[in-house]
Amino acid sequence: MYYAGIDLGGTNIAAGLVTTDGKIVESMSVPTHAERDFREIVKDMAELVVKLSEKANIPVSEIKAVGIGCPGSIDSARGVCEYSNNISMVHADVAGEFKKTLDVPVYLENDANAAALGEYEINAKGSGSFVFVTLGTGVGGGVIINGEIFRGFNGVGAELGHTVINVDGEQCTCGRKGCWEAYASVTALIRQTKAAMEANPDSLMCEIAEKEGRISGMTSFLAAKAGDKAGQAVVDQYFVYIAEGITNLVNIFQPEKLVIGGSISKEGDYLLKPVAELVKKHDYNRYMPKAEIKIATLRGDAGIIGAAIAARNAEER
Amino acid sequence: MYYAGIDLGGTNIAAGLVTTDGKIVESMSVPTHAERDFREIVKDMAELVVKLSEKANIPVSEIKAVGIGCPGSIDSARGVCEYSNNISMVHADVAGEFKKTLDVPVYLENDANAAALGEYEINAKGSGSFVFVTLGTGVGGGVIINGEIFRGFNGVGAELGHTVINVDGEQCTCGRKGCWEAYASVTALIRQTKAAMEANPDSLMCEIAEKEGRISGMTSFLAAKAGDKAGQAVVDQYFVYIAEGITNLVNIFQPEKLVIGGSISKEGDYLLKPVAELVKKHDYNRYMPKAEIKIATLRGDAGIIGAAIAARNAEER
Repeated sequence: MYYAGIDLGGTNIAAGLVTTDGKIVESMSVPTHAERDFREIVKDMAELVVKLSEKANIPVSEIKAVGIGCPGSIDSARGVCEYSNNISMVHADVAGEFKKTLDVPVYLENDANAAALGEYEINAKGSGSFVFVTLGTGVGGGVIINGEIFRGFNGVGAELGHTVINVDGEQCTCGRKGCWEAYASVTALIRQTKAAMEANPDSLMCEIAEKEGRISGMTSFLAAKAGDKAGQAVVDQYFVYIAEGITNLVNIFQPEKLVIGGSISKEGDYLLKPVAELVKKHDYNRYMPKAEIKIATLRGDAGIIGAAIAARNAEER
Repeated sequence: MYYAGIDLGGTNIAAGLVTTDGKIVESMSVPTHAERDFREIVKDMAELVVKLSEKANIPVSEIKAVGIGCPGSIDSARGVCEYSNNISMVHADVAGEFKKTLDVPVYLENDANAAALGEYEINAKGSGSFVFVTLGTGVGGGVIINGEIFRGFNGVGAELGHTVINVDGEQCTCGRKGCWEAYASVTALIRQTKAAMEANPDSLMCEIAEKEGRISGMTSFLAAKAGDKAGQAVVDQYFVYIAEGITNLVNIFQPEKLVIGGSISKEGDYLLKPVAELVKKHDYNRYMPKAEIKIATLRGDAGIIGAAIAARNAEER
């Protein structure tokens, strides 16, 4: 028996057929064309599952259920996306629409929660308390408590990036000032890099940016690794911002494992070691076992696997 | 059948006999004399339960179990206080010592968690996600998820006050800089009041402090209520600090109810209304039902009731 996992992104719809223990046997993706009516997007998702079954030579009847990781505010119990702005949806009955094309059990989950569940299933199964943090364009994540996605009473909990680490600080996209996202996202890193380049016009960062034709999340990292002082200062401060937010989460959740994902996590140990050291130094826990901090391993597959596992868990309940 | 709840504080040991539905039928307290060996303190706790039973004319045989709310890092499963600095304890077998004097089932719980459970039982029972915040000498609290105290994997989670809201900000007692506790505790309020008095020597705050012989958590509140501008500015900024931390917790936990306790909560609506307004304005949730923010009602009894309820829950498990 298999489960289909779908990761609905603003650019692509990625889907996979997944075994009950979280292994992808086949995967495919199609463009989202996010500007369309959600019904057309959902129809494409259902047709993608049919194509997957053909490609994998696994009949649809062997797909026990479909899980969809969807951006925005999700009512999992009803399969409805209450609100999403990347893909325009308000009170959108995603599960209902899906079944019009492919009549199988469908479970809807917030995309960050689904990715958290994927990392948990593969890298932290059995941890009583688990936190997943994504550092990308924004800062998001998910929390798994006793094997279950933690959603809060209204389903929109665990907005880990929208916690203020500097009262009256940098403007955040959410309307508040000083959110962790406004300091620890790649968007924030690029802003910090720009400011450092203006203050240090002789920095290697300027040379790298000119060669690449743009300032990216890599600019300061590349410069720092090549021995550039100003670049190192940007990276060091960025690590402090990441560590402050993670230390907050450790003091709140004391997770057995905390996994860092998102595009910047590709830096691996270069990021993990200093951040984990800062957290270990500053967390509130002096006498009990410490949270283990790791880099995500599933990359883009976390959303597919997690959505499938959410469907599996719902079916097994 | 009754449960005994004990709230072990740095100054007093408070204990009560509690019904299964969380009503105190009798209570007593004795001084802690915190400088003593913990075994003597625990012996006093056990003897206090015996005295309570005599005072209430309820035989000890009708006390099904005893719950103890204890400061510090607690291993609830083993009944051991791993570390506490208010009352000096390291790997202290509190439950074991207690049974030497009174052989009944004994359950140990962190004191803030116990108080959270007490407020939950009386004011929020059935809430899927519940957060209790205490604003006193420090800032603490507890989190109840699906009726269970959330402790993290090592038992020392939910240190809500030790989350940085200003990177590199005010020194906190925990070693970090910029913790919420360093801005929203009464200790912090007194520091903020002192600074405002120095900057505004004509403020009514100075007159009030002189009359009372000290600067307290009341000084700025009294001045603000009497129309003093500088006092009002202190209070307004203090409300912002409280609200920023609570908004963070709402974005993380999306609790059905969030209850504010601790000494400053005696201000009631004067504190609640502006703080709740700020949280409502800034939280990340635009489309789903909002967390209800309330003032604690149990005051000092929360610890006794919560400890008893922790014992009840453990026995019923």
